[in-house]
Amino acid sequence: MSIGLSIHDLLTPVAVIDEKIMETNISVAQEYFDRIGRNFRPHIKTHKIPALATQQIAAGAKGINCQKVSEAEVFADAGFTDILITFNMLGSARLERLKALHSRVNLQVVADNDVVVDALAATFSEDLPLNVLVECDTGSGRNGVQTPAAALELARKIDACPGLTFHGLLTYPKPSSETDVEAFFAQTIDLLKQADLECAVVSHGGSPSLFDSDLVPSATEHRAGTYIFNDRSMVRAGMCDFDDCAMHVIATVVSRPTENRAVLDAGSKALTSDLLGFDDHGLIVEYPDASIATLSEEHAVVDLSGLDEKPEIGERIRIIPNHTCVVSNLFDKLVFHRDGAVTRIEHVAARGQVV
Amino acid sequence: MSIGLSIHDLLTPVAVIDEKIMETNISVAQEYFDRIGRNFRPHIKTHKIPALATQQIAAGAKGINCQKVSEAEVFADAGFTDILITFNMLGSARLERLKALHSRVNLQVVADNDVVVDALAATFSEDLPLNVLVECDTGSGRNGVQTPAAALELARKIDACPGLTFHGLLTYPKPSSETDVEAFFAQTIDLLKQADLECAVVSHGGSPSLFDSDLVPSATEHRAGTYIFNDRSMVRAGMCDFDDCAMHVIATVVSRPTENRAVLDAGSKALTSDLLGFDDHGLIVEYPDASIATLSEEHAVVDLSGLDEKPEIGERIRIIPNHTCVVSNLFDKLVFHRDGAVTRIEHVAARGQVV
Repeated sequence: MSIGLSIHDLLTPVAVIDEKIMETNISVAQEYFDRIGRNFRPHIKTHKIPALATQQIAAGAKGINCQKVSEAEVFADAGFTDILITFNMLGSARLERLKALHSRVNLQVVADNDVVVDALAATFSEDLPLNVLVECDTGSGRNGVQTPAAALELARKIDACPGLTFHGLLTYPKPSSETDVEAFFAQTIDLLKQADLECAVVSHGGSPSLFDSDLVPSATEHRAGTYIFNDRSMVRAGMCDFDDCAMHVIATVVSRPTENRAVLDAGSKALTSDLLGFDDHGLIVEYPDASIATLSEEHAVVDLSGLDEKPEIGERIRIIPNHTCVVSNLFDKLVFHRDGAVTRIEHVAARGQVV
Repeated sequence: MSIGLSIHDLLTPVAVIDEKIMETNISVAQEYFDRIGRNFRPHIKTHKIPALATQQIAAGAKGINCQKVSEAEVFADAGFTDILITFNMLGSARLERLKALHSRVNLQVVADNDVVVDALAATFSEDLPLNVLVECDTGSGRNGVQTPAAALELARKIDACPGLTFHGLLTYPKPSSETDVEAFFAQTIDLLKQADLECAVVSHGGSPSLFDSDLVPSATEHRAGTYIFNDRSMVRAGMCDFDDCAMHVIATVVSRPTENRAVLDAGSKALTSDLLGFDDHGLIVEYPDASIATLSEEHAVVDLSGLDEKPEIGERIRIIPNHTCVVSNLFDKLVFHRDGAVTRIEHVAARGQVV
């Protein structure tokens, strides 16, 4: 299929992945966690492609992290057996599918409230108990119990359910909050110890804090997704350089209506509208001083003010997205290459799973 | 398949479409254009589902509008024969596919610059010439020639190519710019008349200006997509009420970490990050005073400050998205219903077409 095919011949917009950069990203992260003696559990939300998770496991990752039952099902079908779903499970349709999944893989889920624990307890039984981690809000302001005391209380509740096993703690931190995370974890571990509750796993997470995971000594594992491709937000976080970004969206300059305006054939349906704190919608590798100012669904309007050399109509350019995880979710297929030569085309298998 | 299935049983998040509201939206728009005596060409980008375009054509629409060759291919396969692609066509892969498409449907495309016209001219020949409209920038600041004089010049160039036929003018306006649009069109039509160039089509567009199309008397047709479902942006534009919004994203409240925070299981991979000028990420029908403040990929954090009655964990709520066209693009399937009873599940057939 790929023989002779070049990424320069592909219809744009298209999301391409540099195999060499991706391989380096996988091994650099794994080596870090090997060095600090911590389990690493890649989050597959970034790529949703079983073949890539196989590479992550081969490098030494302990298992995988999914965000949805439907993702976990795709990866279970592909042979993955150690799966953590970091989401509160609620609703009969979801719980039924979770139960079916639990019968065939080594599964862990999270909970941060009584309603979720009750729903899990009503679904699972002591002949095959489900491992449950207590999710802790260590400052990100999303899910999670608010205090170590609340974590203990929920752990006790889980421990009292015959169909559930309290398995440990988990957080998705805000960036650069290692001190807060460590304090929350350490205090909770202390409370659990006093209560004689075994805490097998202490799961820390996030790509923006990837190489600072050693600053949270209580953690036993780290979860991260974005690091496999990297993106503009990871460069901003100081975790990599632009040369370490494996994903590019290739687009074509289709119009130059005015001196300082270029229009690309990649809009919010290729790049997403996810600014992630940036002022514009991605970095153009060939014109880093240009600004992708606004997006329509299939158009990007680029501000060329202040550029000496400006792109011409018909020119193909490469965009490093602000946030890679939401870009792969828009494409049915990602194209992989080495130095521009297509090596494989992978189906983004776990995206768009509905009903 | 749908017998007995209720939208209340579906795993969330899920995008559902109320058939009755959609049918009304289709007929109300068509009746307006029938009344003002103007052709209506629905843009399929909003749904990407051939069965819905069939309903739009049955109501009286003249043909369909696509934004990409890959979309047009899916609709040609489904039997649609009158297709306008409102995008500059460039690149050998795209032009080859365009040529194949032209051999089997009545096709029109746009151009706003010489490079695109040259590329089209090199692809098509006089035995089966391609209809080309000149795209005009009437104030939206995206694609388009900047002046009536430039429109004439490009029309002349198209007319001089044996493989191309100058077919008319097109604009995608900024909202409430009917006066600017009419002035641009009228001046250009005048110039074309003086130059003896026939202008068969004058295509106006946009859902936010749908029911003001009569304020552009020079136009011969109108293109619009969003109107079929409507959304929060259409309510803001004064084109409809919330009761006229056919699409809802159903989500579940999965956490209530604090008094004023709820977390939903619908994030940027269900709602998109497209603010479209709003401060938050959609309207919760059951809690219109709540604010969907931030999105992660699979979480929405909702601010409940100031609400007397607050949602409980496990509750299912309905969200009217800011921008419906980007939401349907995230889901592989849309679920249709009447009063909650599922009537059909349609594949979003023309999304995610790559390579």
